[in-house]
Amino acid sequence: MIEIIELIKFDKDSTLPLYVQLYEKLKTLIGDGTLVCDVRLPSIRQLSKELGINRVTVVTAIRELEKDGYVYTKPGSGTFVSSSFIVTDKSMHLQSNLVLDEVYTQEYASLINNGQVSLTENSINFASATPTPDLFPVDDFKVALNEVLERDKGNAFSYQDSQGYYPLRESICRVLGEAMITCNPDDIQIISGAQQGIDIISKALLRQGDYIITESPTYAGAIAVFKSRGVQIADIELFEDGMSLSVLEYTIKKYKPRLLYTIPSFQNPTGYSCSNHKREQLLKLADKYDLYVIEDDYVSDLDFEGKKYITLKSMDKNNRVIFIKSYSKIFMPGLRLGFMIVPPGILGNVIEAKHATDISTSGLIQRAFDLYIRKGFWDKHSQFMYDVYKERYIKTINALDNNLPQNVTYKKPGGGLNLWLSLPPGFHVNKLASLCALKDIVFAPGKIFYSGNSSQKLNNIRLSFASVYVEHIEHGVGILCKTIELMEQKNESYRNLPIL
Amino acid sequence: MIEIIELIKFDKDSTLPLYVQLYEKLKTLIGDGTLVCDVRLPSIRQLSKELGINRVTVVTAIRELEKDGYVYTKPGSGTFVSSSFIVTDKSMHLQSNLVLDEVYTQEYASLINNGQVSLTENSINFASATPTPDLFPVDDFKVALNEVLERDKGNAFSYQDSQGYYPLRESICRVLGEAMITCNPDDIQIISGAQQGIDIISKALLRQGDYIITESPTYAGAIAVFKSRGVQIADIELFEDGMSLSVLEYTIKKYKPRLLYTIPSFQNPTGYSCSNHKREQLLKLADKYDLYVIEDDYVSDLDFEGKKYITLKSMDKNNRVIFIKSYSKIFMPGLRLGFMIVPPGILGNVIEAKHATDISTSGLIQRAFDLYIRKGFWDKHSQFMYDVYKERYIKTINALDNNLPQNVTYKKPGGGLNLWLSLPPGFHVNKLASLCALKDIVFAPGKIFYSGNSSQKLNNIRLSFASVYVEHIEHGVGILCKTIELMEQKNESYRNLPIL
Repeated sequence: MIEIIELIKFDKDSTLPLYVQLYEKLKTLIGDGTLVCDVRLPSIRQLSKELGINRVTVVTAIRELEKDGYVYTKPGSGTFVSSSFIVTDKSMHLQSNLVLDEVYTQEYASLINNGQVSLTENSINFASATPTPDLFPVDDFKVALNEVLERDKGNAFSYQDSQGYYPLRESICRVLGEAMITCNPDDIQIISGAQQGIDIISKALLRQGDYIITESPTYAGAIAVFKSRGVQIADIELFEDGMSLSVLEYTIKKYKPRLLYTIPSFQNPTGYSCSNHKREQLLKLADKYDLYVIEDDYVSDLDFEGKKYITLKSMDKNNRVIFIKSYSKIFMPGLRLGFMIVPPGILGNVIEAKHATDISTSGLIQRAFDLYIRKGFWDKHSQFMYDVYKERYIKTINALDNNLPQNVTYKKPGGGLNLWLSLPPGFHVNKLASLCALKDIVFAPGKIFYSGNSSQKLNNIRLSFASVYVEHIEHGVGILCKTIELMEQKNESYRNLPIL
Repeated sequence: MIEIIELIKFDKDSTLPLYVQLYEKLKTLIGDGTLVCDVRLPSIRQLSKELGINRVTVVTAIRELEKDGYVYTKPGSGTFVSSSFIVTDKSMHLQSNLVLDEVYTQEYASLINNGQVSLTENSINFASATPTPDLFPVDDFKVALNEVLERDKGNAFSYQDSQGYYPLRESICRVLGEAMITCNPDDIQIISGAQQGIDIISKALLRQGDYIITESPTYAGAIAVFKSRGVQIADIELFEDGMSLSVLEYTIKKYKPRLLYTIPSFQNPTGYSCSNHKREQLLKLADKYDLYVIEDDYVSDLDFEGKKYITLKSMDKNNRVIFIKSYSKIFMPGLRLGFMIVPPGILGNVIEAKHATDISTSGLIQRAFDLYIRKGFWDKHSQFMYDVYKERYIKTINALDNNLPQNVTYKKPGGGLNLWLSLPPGFHVNKLASLCALKDIVFAPGKIFYSGNSSQKLNNIRLSFASVYVEHIEHGVGILCKTIELMEQKNESYRNLPIL
């Protein structure tokens, strides 16, 4: 005990209050390992006496340490050091930066681990299509969370119905009504995010060796599910207005797939949208060939230019469409919440697959989100996110207009979170990624969005503006474009290495 | 507006305060559909004036309605009726009773839907191996939840590392140390409950057509996963001290499985435990035949008679054991939280499978639970749960000692949450279930714990005492036993119907 006290010296010239100085000293002793896990701190009385400072000062410092997780108090026994908060700091740092959300693949991870792409606190992150944490409505959600705990007590933590908390399913139906989709709570399956929805549908409908049709390129997480299920992927090249209908019909006839996976509006990664005409035809093909269609409604709400695409689900007369919606983009990814509208013919299988997957989604989160919607917070927040994203979208488009090298092209999507830049064929995208990373700019190489089954374009990159602050966009896009030009000038643009 | 006010009449003779009367009147108008979804209530001023009551009375009633979810307030616009709270009440009622947690199967559900087994509020539920909601430490968890929101703000809702929130993995390792299992945070994979753990391991290790070995009977949720994966189940009869080692070796040689799934301590559904000798031998076989072993540590902590079984993981020298632990039984099922210790050789595959399954487990729940552990709440609560369950265990054993008919047998497990009663061969268990249900007693028929691949015993029932209050146990067990005797006397015990 005495030793600890001897290590604490106050700086009399400091302008910092004594309690802050004590807080910092103790934090340092914990951080550098002098005070190890579960060591008991001297008592308030001892500290106060030995250090010659006021008791209130000591209490305040300890309280702050506890709040920040450096110490914990056992009633009646004293205050103890929480272990490993050095590691915590480190891991929290890593976490906020290394997380590449849905673009994670072992390949991309190795790119990062090899140091070819690195993310730091200063990175301008065009790789992540995920909102920044500052946008999350923590205060409103906290209100909902606490009200639910008050209202439901332990029931909030019981097993939930596998299909999902019924009142939340009701709330979702009401919100969907505003988006012109009619459904009732019995059609809704609550899921822990869109990724889980794809996994559950795969379990309910697909067996090893079955075929599935996807767009190419497409969401890497979907490819991962289908591969994990042992399913054969028949991928169809995606054009600016959707897949070619004749290729689609040809592929259906050839492989007789049970399922088609599509992101019709502001697709991930391309930002392309299927035309309304093609949507109608696609549904006709689904009817004709007895095909289920997963409509991954990634971000159709983020329609910045009044494109007014109609969801497949709202046109779905014959129950062919499984509509999947995540709250990760508009709300917050870490909640792990979303829902599906499931055709009655497969609902039983879907509920059983959900039960075998994780029994149910967290009841607390479901209940809190339900109350959040019922209180009108959701309407307010989705409008707010729309405005934030729209500003980032316009800024990115403008920056590209001002800076884009002649040999780089892209289609303005009119909405969503992603832009798909085409560099000249054979352009060394990995080298570009490395060079940009040196300047703290990261993006997602196009390659990771291909299943590898048919021809891939390796000269694309996905630029997502979801997590880049408006004030960094011009700078980030500028550096990206200049780096491309520089590579061209130095004749470093084209790969002379085997494809990574 | 006027009409609403005309519908509200106060009872002058009532002893209820006016605000409660107003609350009840409005609740009824909402409940019976007179006030429909999103209708705006008259203003506080209007209500106060027209009803001739104090403003504070009106405000209090409205606040209570809001708290209970019947109305919501839009700042600046007024108070509106939340829709569908009639349905909500209904669905909440259904939920708390119909949820059969992990014993859910389509077959069992149909038993309920056919009215053969029904659960009501008065049911004494020996079917659920899940704690009752009143046992959940809502207040302590709320403290942790709010501190995390205060500390991490929006970061609590970002995508988490797929492997899990690092500080939580540290906390888990410390807790495991107390249970004699050494591991480090890099070995830990956070999961959304044990069910998800089994699903992820299946994805990481098994392909359609592969073989897996299970005990027979075993956890119905595990059977569901393996079947969904298209895996062949080789099930081995479970004895009171574990599987027969010679049958095990024979089966391994015959089917060359990649994986064995076992619940060595206080097994579900039997309560049987593998002897320490058999545990050692089992690990030797795993080494010899290059087999991974899933150790589902269901409730080894609930050792009420000092059996001191050693976990397979703590004996695992050669990294053969995948240790899965859920917090559903000791903490609360609705959290959907658990973890696995994963051998390094398969960790990469496991993380990838987790990512493809749901990207990550809810960050908020992970962070709150981490703080909950660090604050010492966990130690306190697990001791509390141990005491509660032990009391229920002893009471159930005593009730059986006093009431068990001669022709019914079971082995006293010494711990866990389940007892496995053997009725005479051919006993009509479904009929027993129906008769007991008429008297508000429910239990799980043994049949649902068999994969159906090899010989099943159809004369067992699982009696779980986890969610039965001590004061109901004697009564419940008494009725069960009397019903069995009655069936025998009336010669109704043996099935004359085809097996359901």
